[in-house]
Amino acid sequence: MQPDDSDLDQLARTLDAAHVFHSWSAQGVKSALTIAGGKGVRVWDHAGRDYLDFSSQLVNTNIGHQHPVVVEAIREQASLLTTIAPSTVNLARGEAAKRIAGRAPEGFEKVFFTNGGADANENAIRLARLYTGRDKILSTYRSYHGNTGAAIVSTGDWRRVPNEFARGHVHFFGPYLYRSEFWAETPEQESERALRHLRRVIESEGPASIAAILLETIPGTAGILLPPPGYLEGVRELATEHGILLILDEVMAGFGRTGEWFAFDAYDVRPDLITFAKGVNSGYIPVGGVVIDDPIAHAFDERVFPGGLTYSGHPLAMASIVATQDAMESEGIVANAKRVGAEAIAPGLAGLAAKHDVIGEVRGTGVFHAMELVADRASRAPLPAADMARIKGALVERGLLPFVQDNRIHVVPPCVVTDADVAEALAIYDDVLATAL
Amino acid sequence: MQPDDSDLDQLARTLDAAHVFHSWSAQGVKSALTIAGGKGVRVWDHAGRDYLDFSSQLVNTNIGHQHPVVVEAIREQASLLTTIAPSTVNLARGEAAKRIAGRAPEGFEKVFFTNGGADANENAIRLARLYTGRDKILSTYRSYHGNTGAAIVSTGDWRRVPNEFARGHVHFFGPYLYRSEFWAETPEQESERALRHLRRVIESEGPASIAAILLETIPGTAGILLPPPGYLEGVRELATEHGILLILDEVMAGFGRTGEWFAFDAYDVRPDLITFAKGVNSGYIPVGGVVIDDPIAHAFDERVFPGGLTYSGHPLAMASIVATQDAMESEGIVANAKRVGAEAIAPGLAGLAAKHDVIGEVRGTGVFHAMELVADRASRAPLPAADMARIKGALVERGLLPFVQDNRIHVVPPCVVTDADVAEALAIYDDVLATAL
Ligand SMILES: Cc1ncc(COP(=O)(O)O)c(C=O)c1O
Ligand SMILES: Cc1ncc(COP(=O)(O)O)c(C=O)c1O
Repeated sequence: MQPDDSDLDQLARTLDAAHVFHSWSAQGVKSALTIAGGKGVRVWDHAGRDYLDFSSQLVNTNIGHQHPVVVEAIREQASLLTTIAPSTVNLARGEAAKRIAGRAPEGFEKVFFTNGGADANENAIRLARLYTGRDKILSTYRSYHGNTGAAIVSTGDWRRVPNEFARGHVHFFGPYLYRSEFWAETPEQESERALRHLRRVIESEGPASIAAILLETIPGTAGILLPPPGYLEGVRELATEHGILLILDEVMAGFGRTGEWFAFDAYDVRPDLITFAKGVNSGYIPVGGVVIDDPIAHAFDERVFPGGLTYSGHPLAMASIVATQDAMESEGIVANAKRVGAEAIAPGLAGLAAKHDVIGEVRGTGVFHAMELVADRASRAPLPAADMARIKGALVERGLLPFVQDNRIHVVPPCVVTDADVAEALAIYDDVLATAL
Repeated sequence: MQPDDSDLDQLARTLDAAHVFHSWSAQGVKSALTIAGGKGVRVWDHAGRDYLDFSSQLVNTNIGHQHPVVVEAIREQASLLTTIAPSTVNLARGEAAKRIAGRAPEGFEKVFFTNGGADANENAIRLARLYTGRDKILSTYRSYHGNTGAAIVSTGDWRRVPNEFARGHVHFFGPYLYRSEFWAETPEQESERALRHLRRVIESEGPASIAAILLETIPGTAGILLPPPGYLEGVRELATEHGILLILDEVMAGFGRTGEWFAFDAYDVRPDLITFAKGVNSGYIPVGGVVIDDPIAHAFDERVFPGGLTYSGHPLAMASIVATQDAMESEGIVANAKRVGAEAIAPGLAGLAAKHDVIGEVRGTGVFHAMELVADRASRAPLPAADMARIKGALVERGLLPFVQDNRIHVVPPCVVTDADVAEALAIYDDVLATAL
């Protein structure tokens, strides 16, 4: 914790208001919190007030804040070599790529590095288009894939709408039983009907025009929508049947979040391209990338891959990946996420749902859960924005940093979270749900 | 320098060949160099062989490799706080934004941070479209603006062609007297005719459909094409006349490269949006951004800005910007680039041109120069690719890392380069041009 220093807090706020233009917001709305430091599942401001981080910021600090092994690796690589052109050979880059390829299914040997999740998806889309010679990319309405040209138009949610300047993107509805688009009543029915819908979209668009289906393995920002039984497997079959590639976006779900290394490890599905960012190094240095199935990678052995960026395979980012991957492995951090999810978060949220009528549904896996709040359990009408804002304010007031999206609270702490942290968070959620409305 | 360690070199090469998918290349072509470390204008491999870096990698290490002040700032911030969500307030972020805004003309107060140059341009384009309510972006054929959806289609060079999946992009020809598109014979004529061409494109596209003209202040990868007298000023007038915004891409030209803080400081032109990356922190941490003219920034005081990314305003990147900017200022690094450019590089290259017929033209400013190599001075036919490859190989062989693009050698060392470094490089260029062909 830091010493009380309200001058620093004031300076940070003044500079922020004067000079920082913020994402996804009206600039007149002031940021609520100044963050000066962090450790594990906690962050603090300059005044020494600390917060239990059940957001992992933007669901990226999977290993927790300021993991000492990763911090030390960054400090060491910083002293050695921070940056070097992508065309050179660099040991840290090879070591990072080896570890990531090693987590993917057999036959995924090569990794293309980017700066984040958006450009990971850009390059996966590029690979799919060039490999298939086809144009269209299918993705779901309930999705977020990043803010750049193709990634934002792949995105399904409202953020796409003011940004539709890319062609070749088609959207469809994915499975979401609680708010089914298909009048389904069971998970099996939702899965079957969502697949039939996708088949009809593919047929109607013309299969031979479709390069790839781009899916978040588990849609994250859209609500942590676990695919029902057979859905991903069915998408894979449809893709294979029509010579369409399957890109799984593991930017948010990957590297421990679901209690698996890749979220798709829990399903019987093999993608053609895997995009990642966030959890791969918890965002300690901006990085992302694409893991490429061998036949696709080898299609560019002789042919020039027409994509690239100045910081592809940046040594400092690479060193942070190596350290993060090794620490997650040796400290059993992914297994911890799985156990805490199953033994503490899932039953804890079920307990809250039993107590609070405002909770319409809880769902999730690992450290990737959501509570869906409703004005009315029967109609499932989402809790109004003003109520959500009050809940969010009350949670922060009580010392918990929440991830609030639409009418949901996403319960997404770092993978290093303990049972005690979860108990503390559950008590805060419980109290706020009882008193803030 | 490192101890001889050919095992590490071998390991780096093996891992690279097995697992790293490289930018802008066929994967079967092996990377030539392993880089293990660097300092100032030099980098070295594991075998202890060192190279004079006259490429600044991808023209990004303006402050040189491993500047101790910046490395220390990264190490310190790494210990404090590496990453935090963009919506929070963070002191390092405010300090970085303040310094960047402080380099821009009066009335540019706000900075939106991205991960690199491509997404800087993506967001400048987004801002221009939303602010004007218009669609089209005009940019030149001889340009590079990045690899993501809108940036790559803004790009004019061959890299655009396999990637044309964005709409609303129109290309025109910029001034380039040595290979004039306008049958011009003097710089003044080139300027005037290029402006008339642009006016005709604007009129023909329909001025009311054009959101922005996006220009590299000095096109970099395309050949370091200094705008002739009056050109930028004329573009500004055309833009203003038609309510079109002017975006200056300072990703490569900015922060010292030309001997100015911003390349446009040497011209009488005020852009509406400025994009940056590379030199702002020499790429020690991936970062870029947009500096926004106040009326545009304030248009989003109430209105939501629909763009963002997980690592916008990343604290580690921010700390590296603060340290880089302060060191560049206190050590007179921009002034050094200007002086060395004028006193050593420009006369040195003129001397080479007087000696070697293969040099068709030399041009540039600061540490941003190009030698254009020709098969024949009269016809100006570019030197064939095979000869360029031989020259490149010979330069590396002689211990100089060159930046070779098409038929040109770009002379783009870090801004900290000394007269002695330049003399060493000139001797190598001289020798190679005399013997390699
Ligand atoms: C599933 C998914 N894909 C892509 C992205 C974009 O990543 P970035 O913000 O690093 O560009 C996100 C970010 O939230 C995401 O959740
Ligand atoms: C002028 C210019 N704009 C944009 C970019 C793209 O920057 P980045 O590679 O960081 O995306 C570059 C990269 O070379 C550039 O030179």
